Amino acid sequence: MEGTDSQEDFKKLDKSLRIRRIIDTATRLFHQKGYRSTTLDDVSKELGITKAALYHYVSSKENLLSIIYIQALENIFENLHMILEKDLPPDKRLRLIIQNHIKNISIRYLPMLSVFLTEEGHLPESDSRKIREEKKKYTRVIEKTIEQGILQGLFLKADPKLQAYAILGMCNWIYKWYRPEHTPYTPDQIADGFVSLLEAGYLKKERAKECTDLGIPAGPIKKGKHETRKQIYYRLKKQCKAMIEIIDELEKTP
Amino acid sequence: MEGTDSQEDFKKLDKSLRIRRIIDTATRLFHQKGYRSTTLDDVSKELGITKAALYHYVSSKENLLSIIYIQALENIFENLHMILEKDLPPDKRLRLIIQNHIKNISIRYLPMLSVFLTEEGHLPESDSRKIREEKKKYTRVIEKTIEQGILQGLFLKADPKLQAYAILGMCNWIYKWYRPEHTPYTPDQIADGFVSLLEAGYLKKERAKECTDLGIPAGPIKKGKHETRKQIYYRLKKQCKAMIEIIDELEKTP
Repeated sequence: MEGTDSQEDFKKLDKSLRIRRIIDTATRLFHQKGYRSTTLDDVSKELGITKAALYHYVSSKENLLSIIYIQALENIFENLHMILEKDLPPDKRLRLIIQNHIKNISIRYLPMLSVFLTEEGHLPESDSRKIREEKKKYTRVIEKTIEQGILQGLFLKADPKLQAYAILGMCNWIYKWYRPEHTPYTPDQIADGFVSLLEAGYLKKERAKECTDLGIPAGPIKKGKHETRKQIYYRLKKQCKAMIEIIDELEKTP
Repeated sequence: MEGTDSQEDFKKLDKSLRIRRIIDTATRLFHQKGYRSTTLDDVSKELGITKAALYHYVSSKENLLSIIYIQALENIFENLHMILEKDLPPDKRLRLIIQNHIKNISIRYLPMLSVFLTEEGHLPESDSRKIREEKKKYTRVIEKTIEQGILQGLFLKADPKLQAYAILGMCNWIYKWYRPEHTPYTPDQIADGFVSLLEAGYLKKERAKECTDLGIPAGPIKKGKHETRKQIYYRLKKQCKAMIEIIDELEKTP
């Protein structure tokens, strides 16, 4: 019997892994059927254990939802802290944050993100408040990165908060359309496509082009400050070519 | 009494307006409390009519949800068709589609979009299938516009479907963070901010810059084809200035 097998499986697990298994199973069910339509009976059945055994780990369905939210926050902030610790220039940092969000949050933990973004109303008020604060913190990191990018002359002038909302919308929305078995894009393709669109949108043109053209990392170089003569010659030559093209066009224009 | 007033109000309305009022009221409640937590009793109470009177217009809560979805589709496609009828070049068309989505769908009909994007699972299967098809049609319009933009050399090369998802995510997500009474941005500011970010991201650089610099409409001009000599001189002068700046930098670089 399936149930007995899972029960054996579950009992063989180390305690921390058991909680992990409960979280994963409940997340999957909440994602598929919605929090309201899922009962603790469904969860225990899916785990192959009795409801009494499940109560050993969680005190209620609401408590289970809170545990899922705590786990989701851990997933979200774990990588973010690693990125922030690297102390990168704003353009590199924002790129990593976006790539991480797409690949490690929206796609890898899709069912968890889906629950995280839709079931907040079912949390106890104190947890719900905490979640709102943590979400704001996350948005604020993106906002501050954009602010710094603008200050350092790397990013185009824009409203940092509005741009943070725009980026988050694009990245979060993935949970609505990405289906591992149907979507014809790999996580890398999605991350590359979105990063290209966004970077062309928020990075200063010459900066974005320079980095791509010269194959140099998008570091905190300021024009004429840390550039080598070779890089400046390169830009000068490109500019000359562009002028020649314009003169050609002029010749053809009546 | 509030209830009696609304009841009088409701009875005074023309029949088509009564249905409109029912849709608006139910949409607001479904948006606030969720479809599952709202009863037809809540809806009739809010309207100030009896449940029996409500049954005169809708046969069930599910039927009411279907009616809301039909109305939402009408709102979504009405303006889209007007935009498509204008037969604009892809860059202008996509700009209008994005502006319309942000201002006339995500913000103006926020509660309706919220219900539309979250309660599909509660529709009868046949309606749900129809909604999925209509959503695909809408995405396909954006995708095709991007395809044409790339073909006509106006847009940067990219995967049109992936870019359509990116744009839709950014625009749809507004329903999650926009609150008329709290958000410090006007609908126009949001539309302008998002359009700037996106256009810098998908339009070809020289095209985007040209349009802004010369204050010319983003029409289907092709370089050296429909441009006047005056416009080309302008570009040439800009190019010269940029070269002089680079030579200045070169002078200062050891």
